[in-house]
Amino acid sequence: MSLEIISQHKIFAGTQLVCSHQSTVLGCTMRFGVFLPDIQTQPKPAVFWLSGLTCTEENFITKSGFQQYAAECGLVIINPDTSPRGLGLNGEDDSYDIGTGAGFYCDATEQPWAPHYKMYSYITQELPSFVAKHFPVDLSRLGIFGHSMGGHGALAIALKNPDLFKSVSAFSPICSTLHSPWGQKALSHYFGDNQDLWANEDVCELTCKYGWQGPTILVDQGSDDPFLTEQLKPQLLTQACSDTNTPLTLRMQPGYDHSYYFIASFIGEHIHFHAQHLT
Amino acid sequence: MSLEIISQHKIFAGTQLVCSHQSTVLGCTMRFGVFLPDIQTQPKPAVFWLSGLTCTEENFITKSGFQQYAAECGLVIINPDTSPRGLGLNGEDDSYDIGTGAGFYCDATEQPWAPHYKMYSYITQELPSFVAKHFPVDLSRLGIFGHSMGGHGALAIALKNPDLFKSVSAFSPICSTLHSPWGQKALSHYFGDNQDLWANEDVCELTCKYGWQGPTILVDQGSDDPFLTEQLKPQLLTQACSDTNTPLTLRMQPGYDHSYYFIASFIGEHIHFHAQHLT
Repeated sequence: MSLEIISQHKIFAGTQLVCSHQSTVLGCTMRFGVFLPDIQTQPKPAVFWLSGLTCTEENFITKSGFQQYAAECGLVIINPDTSPRGLGLNGEDDSYDIGTGAGFYCDATEQPWAPHYKMYSYITQELPSFVAKHFPVDLSRLGIFGHSMGGHGALAIALKNPDLFKSVSAFSPICSTLHSPWGQKALSHYFGDNQDLWANEDVCELTCKYGWQGPTILVDQGSDDPFLTEQLKPQLLTQACSDTNTPLTLRMQPGYDHSYYFIASFIGEHIHFHAQHLT
Repeated sequence: MSLEIISQHKIFAGTQLVCSHQSTVLGCTMRFGVFLPDIQTQPKPAVFWLSGLTCTEENFITKSGFQQYAAECGLVIINPDTSPRGLGLNGEDDSYDIGTGAGFYCDATEQPWAPHYKMYSYITQELPSFVAKHFPVDLSRLGIFGHSMGGHGALAIALKNPDLFKSVSAFSPICSTLHSPWGQKALSHYFGDNQDLWANEDVCELTCKYGWQGPTILVDQGSDDPFLTEQLKPQLLTQACSDTNTPLTLRMQPGYDHSYYFIASFIGEHIHFHAQHLT
């Protein structure tokens, strides 16, 4: 379980690393980003960022501008890739929304995915443990956030693991995989026909099942997002939170779309939100 | 001379456009970025950004994070591509430092470049005029800045055109094309053996020839830039400015390299610098 540093750049008052390691859980080499603020306090709180469909670790690192705020707040930011890579599974590279770049942060049970597509276990177990071995991260002060598929992932993972992730936020999340064509396709590939397993990957279902005792869940959603109506459906999350007295701050942001231009515009507020609850 | 809008995204308090038009000067279709702040004052001051080798208009738009600051300051930011595109000239795509992506912001005199590689005329004449026709830009309040090859371009163009560009700054500029392998290669291709033409593209020579009566020239340079010693040579610019009483603020930034991570870390200060002198 050795760490390889692929690249390292000073940015604002911190250092952006891209690392790789051999993942035991996924059975392949995985890349992830680590931002280390210069601030000397140790160990530091950390927030995990989960990216959306088609992304690697690179998009968030180069396009979101998060480093400025993480340096200010003294947060470590960890951002993994969105799926296993390079496995050569049948159908893995056939479409943008299944397989490579589309792991959906779940543990698949169907073939050919099941032996490798275990992003849920990777994010909740292997990666935090690996990161804490190599970097000054305080595992008792973790937050999680993400975008689109990664917004779904962040919310689902936090709801299932409130002891691990103490704060959660999302940009443009897929709020109900059961009611999203992207989600339905992923669930059918990764879990076959088992509807109980499907429900276990649906943020609204999980909200009703587990609730959330942490600080308010922060969600930003662009009003001009082309996926808003068909894929994302924040009104379903609002309803689930309302039904269960789950604290939710959902902000519709007029004029913004689904892109990293939107993420860049509000990433500072999300970083400060997590810092407020973790530092 | 019609304008085509390729993409349009809301970001911070403004809109990032990518546009294209048919350039008469260059004889090809050219893309450029335009950031329009929401602020209502019209017409607005504008700053032209010139990118470095291998870049298109995209790098600065997606990686620098400038929009946050330009929105705050009410500046329009125009960023052109780094060369003509798609001409099919002999040798145009053979190396990263000549031809495509490497126009060096000069008007070439040698074949096969001369009929098209006229980025100097494009930046100083055609593009400002075209932009002012389509956007609320005040041509009496323009600044210019850039990175590496584009830092050279910004400095050389400002020194030659102090009535057009009222403020100038640069990141990691090629300070003397005459003393840079990149510069020497470009000059030999674009100008052949004519040493007078070479000197007319050297920032240090131009400083001595024209001086600069505007506000201090702001230059940021990373101390860990791998191109510092062989290609960039800021000490030559310091010497030329010292010899001619030209106002220069050269800041060596410890630990930073040549990348957009460096640019992102200080772009806010450069935007505020230009705003201070243009608004």
